[in-house]
Amino acid sequence: MELIRSISKMRDWSKSHRERGRKIAFVPTMGYFHDGHLALMKRASELGDKVVVSIFVNPTQFGPTEDFARYPRNLDRDIDLASSVGVDCIFYPEASEMYPEGFDTWVEVPGLAKGLCGASRPGHFRGVTTVVLKLFNIVAPHVAVFGQKDYQQLKIIQKMVRDLNIPIEIVPHPIVREPDGLAMSSRNTYLSAEERKSALCLYKALMRAKELYEGGVTSAKALRQEVEEIIRSTPLTRIDYCFLGSGETLTEEEELGPGSVIALAVWVGKTRLIDNVLL
Amino acid sequence: MELIRSISKMRDWSKSHRERGRKIAFVPTMGYFHDGHLALMKRASELGDKVVVSIFVNPTQFGPTEDFARYPRNLDRDIDLASSVGVDCIFYPEASEMYPEGFDTWVEVPGLAKGLCGASRPGHFRGVTTVVLKLFNIVAPHVAVFGQKDYQQLKIIQKMVRDLNIPIEIVPHPIVREPDGLAMSSRNTYLSAEERKSALCLYKALMRAKELYEGGVTSAKALRQEVEEIIRSTPLTRIDYCFLGSGETLTEEEELGPGSVIALAVWVGKTRLIDNVLL
Repeated sequence: MELIRSISKMRDWSKSHRERGRKIAFVPTMGYFHDGHLALMKRASELGDKVVVSIFVNPTQFGPTEDFARYPRNLDRDIDLASSVGVDCIFYPEASEMYPEGFDTWVEVPGLAKGLCGASRPGHFRGVTTVVLKLFNIVAPHVAVFGQKDYQQLKIIQKMVRDLNIPIEIVPHPIVREPDGLAMSSRNTYLSAEERKSALCLYKALMRAKELYEGGVTSAKALRQEVEEIIRSTPLTRIDYCFLGSGETLTEEEELGPGSVIALAVWVGKTRLIDNVLL
Repeated sequence: MELIRSISKMRDWSKSHRERGRKIAFVPTMGYFHDGHLALMKRASELGDKVVVSIFVNPTQFGPTEDFARYPRNLDRDIDLASSVGVDCIFYPEASEMYPEGFDTWVEVPGLAKGLCGASRPGHFRGVTTVVLKLFNIVAPHVAVFGQKDYQQLKIIQKMVRDLNIPIEIVPHPIVREPDGLAMSSRNTYLSAEERKSALCLYKALMRAKELYEGGVTSAKALRQEVEEIIRSTPLTRIDYCFLGSGETLTEEEELGPGSVIALAVWVGKTRLIDNVLL
């Protein structure tokens, strides 16, 4: 497995493989891999001849009061894990090369970034779209895999790619869960044993809403009540948002239907967790 | 010469030439060609094996009170002129394909876009950077040529390319002028005979400032006074801005030096003209 730090070497690597007709599949990450990341990498290896994974804890997508500094990092472990699933190249650039002095170009998808996580994390998606476009230009993949756990992020990236005519195919990957249902996240490592128990309420609430929906309840109001009730009755939790609406435009709906999404952000102690279910 | 209207056909054309190892040089334009455009195309043919010129009067870079509807257009004449200088392909997409229903992704270089033309044309450069990035992704050139008459635009495009790691070389081209010195512009066709005479004051003022600078006058204040005096004493004119400062950061300087730029925007009747000189 190749380990590449510099932007120009990454470009050269991709160029040489593209010239030999190889299809490059890309998984951008912030590292600290769990089985969710590894599932994206395995999917990537089905989609392309060569798999590139980037590891970059992107400073521009963290707010000033957020967990950039304490975000978990373990490059050696990540290298071993990526290698074990057949990744061909890890790109782990330095922040100083990604954002040199005077950096000041930004990509935004304002409509889709307004609500949900965008409302409580101003500037977050601007940082995400900007760094993803940079990584796309550096890695030059044919296809890129994104997890559906970050549902709003996925929709924003898909829209950016469409609107800016970026010649890359975006492949969504279903949420990977712990045996009990908790969506995998690098941030789960922040949870105490007690918080870990409470954290399950996101999944429970979403499953209950899905069950009700499949039983014929389509009223967003009724479903919201049920979801919020399950979370409120769980210790150590505080709802950031509970969204019920269109899975495409991310606007609220009164009646849910096929293509609607229920998305949650919940504070469990000092950790903010997200999860969602597509109907 | 190939005439291409659809985005997917343009992609295919570029892909087939890239695969055959041909270097593609690109000149994005809004059409209504004059000798300035043709000079960019000739430069492009020195730089690449194949020259693509886009013609697209980009709605998103015009303000609501600006001249989008009356901007001069003549596709048949443009095709003949481009053909006469050996252009290989004209890409003239439809606005409805470039900006489909719900389009909402924007690229911005806020710092460089704040002053000069950005101050009197809010949103203008956001439209420019967005459409140029789209065209870059569709045409996939190796190199692109931009005129220095739109000096702020050139600096913004160069910064966008650097910041977003876009794998395209940007080649600036010197301003092309009429025999009497007026910078060539499609908007010159708006001028009446009388206005055409007054329009020369931009060039005269810039040449006078350059002469003074080369004679040892480096004070921005003194040079500005001279420039503004020449323009104010010309009938039918109104200064939009007179900028004297860094040619890189586009911030004002008190003392000019090598790399400084003097840039002007002047209303002549109802036509807004720009010009500049790099010291």
